[in-house]
Amino acid sequence: MSATQLVNGLADTARAAARTLSASTGAERASALNAIADAVIARTAEILAANEEDMVRARAANINDSLLDRLLLTPARVEGIANGALQVSKLPDPLGITLRQSTLPNGIDLKQITVPFGVIGMVYEARPNVTVDAAVILLMSGNAALLRGSSSASASNQILITVMRDALKTTKISPDVIQLVPSDDRDTVKALLNARGKVDLVIPRGSASLIRMVVDESTVPTIETGAGVCHVYIDEFADLAKAVPIIVNSKVQRPSVCNAAETVLIHKTIAKDFVPVALKALHDAGVILHGDADVLALAGSIPMSAATEENWCTEYGTLEMNVAIVESVDAASEHIAKYGTKHTEAIITENKANAARFIALSDCAAVMVNTSTRFTDGEQMGFGAEIGISNQKLHARGPMGLEAMTTTTWIVTGDGQIRS
Amino acid sequence: MSATQLVNGLADTARAAARTLSASTGAERASALNAIADAVIARTAEILAANEEDMVRARAANINDSLLDRLLLTPARVEGIANGALQVSKLPDPLGITLRQSTLPNGIDLKQITVPFGVIGMVYEARPNVTVDAAVILLMSGNAALLRGSSSASASNQILITVMRDALKTTKISPDVIQLVPSDDRDTVKALLNARGKVDLVIPRGSASLIRMVVDESTVPTIETGAGVCHVYIDEFADLAKAVPIIVNSKVQRPSVCNAAETVLIHKTIAKDFVPVALKALHDAGVILHGDADVLALAGSIPMSAATEENWCTEYGTLEMNVAIVESVDAASEHIAKYGTKHTEAIITENKANAARFIALSDCAAVMVNTSTRFTDGEQMGFGAEIGISNQKLHARGPMGLEAMTTTTWIVTGDGQIRS
Repeated sequence: MSATQLVNGLADTARAAARTLSASTGAERASALNAIADAVIARTAEILAANEEDMVRARAANINDSLLDRLLLTPARVEGIANGALQVSKLPDPLGITLRQSTLPNGIDLKQITVPFGVIGMVYEARPNVTVDAAVILLMSGNAALLRGSSSASASNQILITVMRDALKTTKISPDVIQLVPSDDRDTVKALLNARGKVDLVIPRGSASLIRMVVDESTVPTIETGAGVCHVYIDEFADLAKAVPIIVNSKVQRPSVCNAAETVLIHKTIAKDFVPVALKALHDAGVILHGDADVLALAGSIPMSAATEENWCTEYGTLEMNVAIVESVDAASEHIAKYGTKHTEAIITENKANAARFIALSDCAAVMVNTSTRFTDGEQMGFGAEIGISNQKLHARGPMGLEAMTTTTWIVTGDGQIRS
Repeated sequence: MSATQLVNGLADTARAAARTLSASTGAERASALNAIADAVIARTAEILAANEEDMVRARAANINDSLLDRLLLTPARVEGIANGALQVSKLPDPLGITLRQSTLPNGIDLKQITVPFGVIGMVYEARPNVTVDAAVILLMSGNAALLRGSSSASASNQILITVMRDALKTTKISPDVIQLVPSDDRDTVKALLNARGKVDLVIPRGSASLIRMVVDESTVPTIETGAGVCHVYIDEFADLAKAVPIIVNSKVQRPSVCNAAETVLIHKTIAKDFVPVALKALHDAGVILHGDADVLALAGSIPMSAATEENWCTEYGTLEMNVAIVESVDAASEHIAKYGTKHTEAIITENKANAARFIALSDCAAVMVNTSTRFTDGEQMGFGAEIGISNQKLHARGPMGLEAMTTTTWIVTGDGQIRS
């Protein structure tokens, strides 16, 4: 059987089963998530044993420590997975919500309501917890899930999906709404991306090369999650006591993630005083620094190199950062338009007009005013669950929770009206 | 210059000019639309002269009457174009609307607001009025427009874009937010579809082959407008006095459009009485009929043929229709899932549970209860303007007005908060 036949078959099975979801109540879906959480806890030993298989294979392949840590499950991490499912089960039902309603002049009642997509494919890498995190968000939002994890986590993903499917057998939801897409064949990703009409949406989570492949090859609609080259602009009217911790937090608190900042832009009128302070704080936090010529001239004893064109474009993912001096809010926005990835941009200012101008000129998923870029995050924003951060403009932008996994339909109720 | 260089250059110019839009007020954009409407009226003679060039060319190429009529501009049609711009100028500003707002436990203020996409490409066919209709919707929603019409309308589109750009010279909006993409080279469409990072969104409006090409080739996000194989299901609890006019209206009122119905499904318990009545009404309205075996057995003297697999799948666009008998709401939904295009589906019933079940099992942009499929339409739904009907699930579903041409951003306002 070809990868295409395999994936199309899984999608057909999932779609038929998804009818049990589209006809379910929120309480029934929440109860299914509870059953999944209980089963994950009850079968911890099996899950850890399967994970150990993946770990043995990974160690034999000399995979680096950081990836090994991402792959590893522990009793505490398994409990965390179950708790995640419980938390999602407590969120408000995202389906059937009336977004707009009106009565037309001809007496017709018009309602736009939220409905599930149907069948959603996830393509992701490494961490096995994503298997359950994604499945429960998709289930709670009424969608069947085709889960295509990485081959390095295949035993872990297999057992987690088995545990979830077994748990659903005791509920009103068909186990077939969760499908494992085999990861031993690279062609299954391409088959997913081209299962047009069978799969309603594919969400890739992973490396830039995965995202690019999805953009180039997919005929199924996709939501891109993507890179963040985020900036913090320190305005001439900034409260500098706020600015320093925000710069450091934006870079240092977790440098590997997409909402970490890569570049600081500083208004020229405060540069002479502020640049040395900012550089020292970053240097003390262990950040490798690159600057434009004006910044280098103010660096004093702080070691730093001249920033290259490549530096301005790079999402470091590590403790490395660029600093530049700009002439105005508009100049900061121009730098950002040239080098940013439309993810998160911050302005530090006490001047409302400058904040408003920065917001108007920004073209990104989130604008931060006097706070850290690290807050572009579903949990921090109070969504309760996050399936990824959209870095595109269609459908969802920024952190995506349950409601981003719904689409809408118009319900048009008449009493025999016809169009004239 | 290659088509790619040409289109990328136009997109860069449009994006720079779009800054005059993102910083504009709704009143300034409305005033720009007024200037456009005035200019269209004032320069009617020039517009008609250019259109006559296209008509001469089209007649020489022996283009059929229906296409000639679509291409033709008259003084009344030019006035209609100007009135359309005036109407859009009166709609509420779709930008800067707060969709969600909350204060987080750490005191941060979180707002999701509507913002423009930036640069939107339109690829469309035949009718020159689309040039102005699309441009004014995009302008009012803060977007720069790259307009790629058909080569048959090239002189008309050229003068309409010149008139609009000239009109903008008197306003706060840069004329460069409207760009003509030359239609004399087919490669400009492909260049638009691959101007990733330069163009934020492409909306194709036209034939199925155009849409398919867009899906296959585009690396820029797109919103598909598409085919409608729409159904009307007559439930066992239908008020038959409503059912007949609704079936006829759904097919006959304007058979060439996507929200016209192609198939009637009739519940078995009412089939014996209702099928002959429905067939006669459709036949009297000039509709060519196809039916399943059970329907044929009830056809009496009404001429009709056995429906083939191809009939059930076809968007006729003409006075031709299929009729089938089904066992239940679920069976009707299964037929629709197999043959429908997820556009518009109607149920005629006085039974609320059956209507709810039909809605839950439907997977389409609009569900009609006791009314005609022809109401899936931006004007009918009170949107004031329509740039197309989305037949996909991402971002917008169904008729798209001004707000579908916006995306969102999160504005996160703090007072120095950092993430711990």
